[in-house]
Amino acid sequence: MLIRAMLFSLTAVLAVTFSATAAARETYQFTLAETWGPNTPILGETTRRMAAMVERMSAGRLQIRIDSANKHKAPFGIFNMVKAGRYDMGHTASYYYKGLIPNAMYFTTVPFGMIAPEQYAWFYFGDGMELMKKVYRPHGLLSFPGGNTGNQMGGWFREEINSLEDLQGLKMRTPGFAGEVMAEVGVAVTNIPPGDLYTALERGTIDALEWVGPALDFQMGFHQIAKHYYSGWQEPAAEVQFLVNEKSWSRLPEDLKEILRVAMRTAAYDMYAQSMHLSGEAWAKMKDNYPDVSHQTFPPAVIDALRAATEKLLAEAAASDELASDIINSQRSYLQQIRQWTNISDKAYLNSISTATGD
Amino acid sequence: MLIRAMLFSLTAVLAVTFSATAAARETYQFTLAETWGPNTPILGETTRRMAAMVERMSAGRLQIRIDSANKHKAPFGIFNMVKAGRYDMGHTASYYYKGLIPNAMYFTTVPFGMIAPEQYAWFYFGDGMELMKKVYRPHGLLSFPGGNTGNQMGGWFREEINSLEDLQGLKMRTPGFAGEVMAEVGVAVTNIPPGDLYTALERGTIDALEWVGPALDFQMGFHQIAKHYYSGWQEPAAEVQFLVNEKSWSRLPEDLKEILRVAMRTAAYDMYAQSMHLSGEAWAKMKDNYPDVSHQTFPPAVIDALRAATEKLLAEAAASDELASDIINSQRSYLQQIRQWTNISDKAYLNSISTATGD
Repeated sequence: MLIRAMLFSLTAVLAVTFSATAAARETYQFTLAETWGPNTPILGETTRRMAAMVERMSAGRLQIRIDSANKHKAPFGIFNMVKAGRYDMGHTASYYYKGLIPNAMYFTTVPFGMIAPEQYAWFYFGDGMELMKKVYRPHGLLSFPGGNTGNQMGGWFREEINSLEDLQGLKMRTPGFAGEVMAEVGVAVTNIPPGDLYTALERGTIDALEWVGPALDFQMGFHQIAKHYYSGWQEPAAEVQFLVNEKSWSRLPEDLKEILRVAMRTAAYDMYAQSMHLSGEAWAKMKDNYPDVSHQTFPPAVIDALRAATEKLLAEAAASDELASDIINSQRSYLQQIRQWTNISDKAYLNSISTATGD
Repeated sequence: MLIRAMLFSLTAVLAVTFSATAAARETYQFTLAETWGPNTPILGETTRRMAAMVERMSAGRLQIRIDSANKHKAPFGIFNMVKAGRYDMGHTASYYYKGLIPNAMYFTTVPFGMIAPEQYAWFYFGDGMELMKKVYRPHGLLSFPGGNTGNQMGGWFREEINSLEDLQGLKMRTPGFAGEVMAEVGVAVTNIPPGDLYTALERGTIDALEWVGPALDFQMGFHQIAKHYYSGWQEPAAEVQFLVNEKSWSRLPEDLKEILRVAMRTAAYDMYAQSMHLSGEAWAKMKDNYPDVSHQTFPPAVIDALRAATEKLLAEAAASDELASDIINSQRSYLQQIRQWTNISDKAYLNSISTATGD
């Protein structure tokens, strides 16, 4: 009887212990679909760094399998696939879904908007995260900043732009909201698949195009044809996004949720640092190897016109939708405040050095 | 016999199970000493955010107790206390230990050096982390970026500075390396405890002082006395540091090491975003409430002289120590490259907007 009682009690303890162990050791498999092709520098490295951090922090309890565009065949279908639960997560850019979910675009970047450090401050210490939630939650999605490319260049032009007249009828590849702004000031905007861009520029099908910045432009070879490289205005801080299906998220225990949240946040910041690093490296290499490439800035009259066109389109968007209005107003008032600080800190510093030494 | 065998085998299983569970659930208590007093905004929030992330990600398996300066009474003794193992971790600024470990200072900031996004790129994608390791490892310490204040202001001046002559004999509180540079160009540099600064400025014991930036300057009240607020040159990106005792670190299992590493990294980036946010807020408030405060930049001749003095002191440091030379050269060549990118991206963008609209 004693032995039977002991056996019973041991078995009970054993069961409890096993169940606690099982809970602590249960593993979760997540799938992530990314817009990018396999081995895409910067963007693809970001998803892999995020997944590696999650796996190490969770001691293997949460594993994330990443499918690139060659696998899922839907680079611009990430939003739909994660919403439908075909993938637990996605890595993409909000402004690709302008047709499906127009208000998402403001969370990537806005022409004449914030630069990256200002925009991270708005996301995490201003109203950015709360507003982004209002846009994605109705679709059953959680959304998080997913990494910044830094300030994007205004593009490669075959001829110099000295006035607003030079833009009239100019054939230029520039997609999205920036394309709409360009069209407003008289540019003949076209969209051409990435693989055909070099040939289109070479044959004069287009006179100019906008891509990203030195780190990703260099390999495209545009500098061999168009020698005028303009500073940007249209994407001062392009932030990509992580999307997570809410049902997938809710299956995770609290510690794994936090591990995933923090890994996404760190991977996003890291992408901005890596973009800075590689842009510096690529621009130096371009200047050394292609001294005939000249850096230019648009003349004030062009900037004025682009800015006025941007304001007009934003005002139209704000008038047509209440949430769009909330987002646009939040970004505008935040920018007005924080830009004053940027102007007396980093901008004044960078300019005072140039004034003194001419560099 | 059967029952005894069963009992034996059950006990064996039980022991194994208990030990696996114990390993998975063993909790670790870390102590962290911070330079800052209790409830210090930004800096103190950074350590608390880091500890909270660690606790949630580890499901309570790693807990970090934070002692502020009122508890340990040694705000500038963090390096020694963590080295001696009296604390497992510390949060402080490398340049406070100029006397004990001179080469550490370069990892905070350098006059005329990198701005925060450039410096994070150097830490994480250039040689920064490797060089910092060379400085701290001989002391049995691991070191990590611990958060950035952003570009610091040049200080509060009672009178305008229009020429290098205006700096001759000017009594100014400005500590550390910047103080040495200021002394080189003729300033009478003094150091005065923070609590006495307001009175010293009011009574004319000093003519000027440098503190941090709007977010932390406002509460000190200097703007009520000295009306000329100058943009900075001396600390373009002040990064504080996390230090971890190597023996404490090595006791942690791999997953907790990664959790701690990622939490420190995220908390550091977040501090930079929060500094941006609060500086923007505080500067707007100051301009609204104290319209007689004027923002100024030092004239080119002053910047030139300060820069030449900085170069002279850095050359002396590089000549006297091989590791100092490695760090200074790494920072210099990295800056030369990445600044070219900053100039054609964020700087060109910020300037093109001002040119067009005058703001």
